[in-house]
Amino acid sequence: MTSSVTSTVRDSVGVLALTAPDRRNPLSLSTMRAATAALHTLGANPDVRVIVISASGPAFSAGHDLSEMVERTLTDEQEIFAACTELMTAVHRVRQPVIAQVQGMALAAGCQLVATCDLAVAADTARFSTPGVRIGLFCSTPMVPLSRAIGRKRAMQMLLTGDMIDAATAVDWGLINSAVPAEELESTVAELAERIGQFSGDTLAIGKRAFYDQIDRTEPDAYAEMSAVMAANAMTCDAQEGMSAFLAKRDPVWQS
Amino acid sequence: MTSSVTSTVRDSVGVLALTAPDRRNPLSLSTMRAATAALHTLGANPDVRVIVISASGPAFSAGHDLSEMVERTLTDEQEIFAACTELMTAVHRVRQPVIAQVQGMALAAGCQLVATCDLAVAADTARFSTPGVRIGLFCSTPMVPLSRAIGRKRAMQMLLTGDMIDAATAVDWGLINSAVPAEELESTVAELAERIGQFSGDTLAIGKRAFYDQIDRTEPDAYAEMSAVMAANAMTCDAQEGMSAFLAKRDPVWQS
Amino acid sequence: MTSSVTSTVRDSVGVLALTAPDRRNPLSLSTMRAATAALHTLGANPDVRVIVISASGPAFSAGHDLSEMVERTLTDEQEIFAACTELMTAVHRVRQPVIAQVQGMALAAGCQLVATCDLAVAADTARFSTPGVRIGLFCSTPMVPLSRAIGRKRAMQMLLTGDMIDAATAVDWGLINSAVPAEELESTVAELAERIGQFSGDTLAIGKRAFYDQIDRTEPDAYAEMSAVMAANAMTCDAQEGMSAFLAKRDPVWQS
Repeated sequence: MTSSVTSTVRDSVGVLALTAPDRRNPLSLSTMRAATAALHTLGANPDVRVIVISASGPAFSAGHDLSEMVERTLTDEQEIFAACTELMTAVHRVRQPVIAQVQGMALAAGCQLVATCDLAVAADTARFSTPGVRIGLFCSTPMVPLSRAIGRKRAMQMLLTGDMIDAATAVDWGLINSAVPAEELESTVAELAERIGQFSGDTLAIGKRAFYDQIDRTEPDAYAEMSAVMAANAMTCDAQEGMSAFLAKRDPVWQS
Repeated sequence: MTSSVTSTVRDSVGVLALTAPDRRNPLSLSTMRAATAALHTLGANPDVRVIVISASGPAFSAGHDLSEMVERTLTDEQEIFAACTELMTAVHRVRQPVIAQVQGMALAAGCQLVATCDLAVAADTARFSTPGVRIGLFCSTPMVPLSRAIGRKRAMQMLLTGDMIDAATAVDWGLINSAVPAEELESTVAELAERIGQFSGDTLAIGKRAFYDQIDRTEPDAYAEMSAVMAANAMTCDAQEGMSAFLAKRDPVWQS
Repeated sequence: MTSSVTSTVRDSVGVLALTAPDRRNPLSLSTMRAATAALHTLGANPDVRVIVISASGPAFSAGHDLSEMVERTLTDEQEIFAACTELMTAVHRVRQPVIAQVQGMALAAGCQLVATCDLAVAADTARFSTPGVRIGLFCSTPMVPLSRAIGRKRAMQMLLTGDMIDAATAVDWGLINSAVPAEELESTVAELAERIGQFSGDTLAIGKRAFYDQIDRTEPDAYAEMSAVMAANAMTCDAQEGMSAFLAKRDPVWQS
């Protein structure tokens, strides 16, 4: 059996790739578990400074593997959505920034994965939808990151109609950060990963963790937490080095 | 006394219409109560698959009926805002998706109603504002759905200035889903309602309820809840039928 | 020692100005404390109807004073972020609407201040960034208002890359309300302040306080709170006068 997920590290960038292009990279139970495990492994690898989630073939991902969801028990179904939630949670939990590199259609849980990543860059031919309503299975877990990324009316439009949006609309709505010609996608993401990867790894890890820690809090609670986080960050070697280097107009040398 | 609200059902679409055009469809206490009751009745009608809120005349709604709010007791005022909140809550609580069909100005509580609907389509000549500040009565209840739809800076701009925004701006800010030429408004909404109405009624009801259930939660809580919702949804007849039909490349036949 | 902050009142508008242009208006500990005190003083001044935060020189603010943050104790760092949080909190707590008048670069805590103000108008040459990641000190407190103003993907982009966005992008993303030619900035803000300042002071104070009170609540809680606020607002002299004047088609005369 060929693996539906591969994980590689090159030039400090960990690439998690979905590799079942002929089936449009379904997020089957085994794929989600393999992807979650691969993310945690990349996350624990000190050589990995940024993680990219990519996919091969014409589609990024068509979402869950429906053949696993018909004529099953409730326990089976729960297992699938638990595994899906673990994958999305892993994207937020790993130390490194995670960039989605979206070369084609991202549907349902595939769209959810794009919405979940810290950053997302897509080919200008990519398209996005949450079409579960069309098959009687509302995209209720995809709606969690989707509604938080693009707002209520637009999320409802995607969820209630199942209509596709194109890459330009996805940029306009804040679902992805940018859209580029397909032939420039890989180099654009590589360049973005390299730029981010040059920063202190500890600082990126502190900041990413802080982001998801504060986003669900009330503003006063968020400030209480972030003030403590930022004061502690300021005491780290890399922040002290970074500020000293800036004041001395020289390049910093990171310890992490 | 002619009713200020009518409710009709045609082709599986329930239409709640504001019918006091000469007074710009004020949301008087009696109108709000009638509208709330009509929504609940439409909501309980198994023949109704989608609900449209429309209005007659040049304005969608000018908001509350100010003549009911001068020289009254605090209890009177509280009664009005309680009735208003019940109307907005009913929009979210009914099983069916609710689409605002906005043919003209939507002011104050009228703008709130548009912000509250699941979807909103407007004539490109429609305009929106929360002008309460101009008459000493800040639009504090309209701000609830408004700030959640369009974000902080833009909501504050509308609330602090009372300035109108046009339909194109409302689309850009996510207050409404789209703007079309006035003469195409009714057919556009009808077509949208028909498209959504073809989906499983149970699935739409599960999804709509889930949306408002998850939107106010932290992301981990939302996932816990939505994983359970989606697993249960997957076990329904309509989801099993929808997935089977999709895998067999045939059209689904819904039970609901 | 010249003050780094000045506070003036003219034509009912209180102007808090950052006045260390040669150092790009750093938010040093003393500057933040002086600004917070000045805000509270302006806030308590019954002649002040609107507050403008402006800055002199080519930059709005470059953020914290890094020289205060190297080779310090954790207590020192905590003091800085506590003072920063107090300044941002003061912007939300003062009775009057606060408008940021952004004539140049707003970086890190400077960008945070813009994101925090109720409204923001910028010169079209202004630029915004949260570049802390570049010096090892992630902009974790700026992310609090930034992520709430512009959404997740865009906030992450600014935070993880430290890249600048221009004024047009800041408008598009909802970080600021509008961008105007630099030579029109002061007059545009003055006109906006004057328009808002003509409204009832009590109504503005009720509305502003209500806005930040409801924004972090669940929607049902927000409605419960705002219904009470708006009913009480309706009983105030200014609301009664405003509604009566509107119904009589005359101009209102405010008591506050």
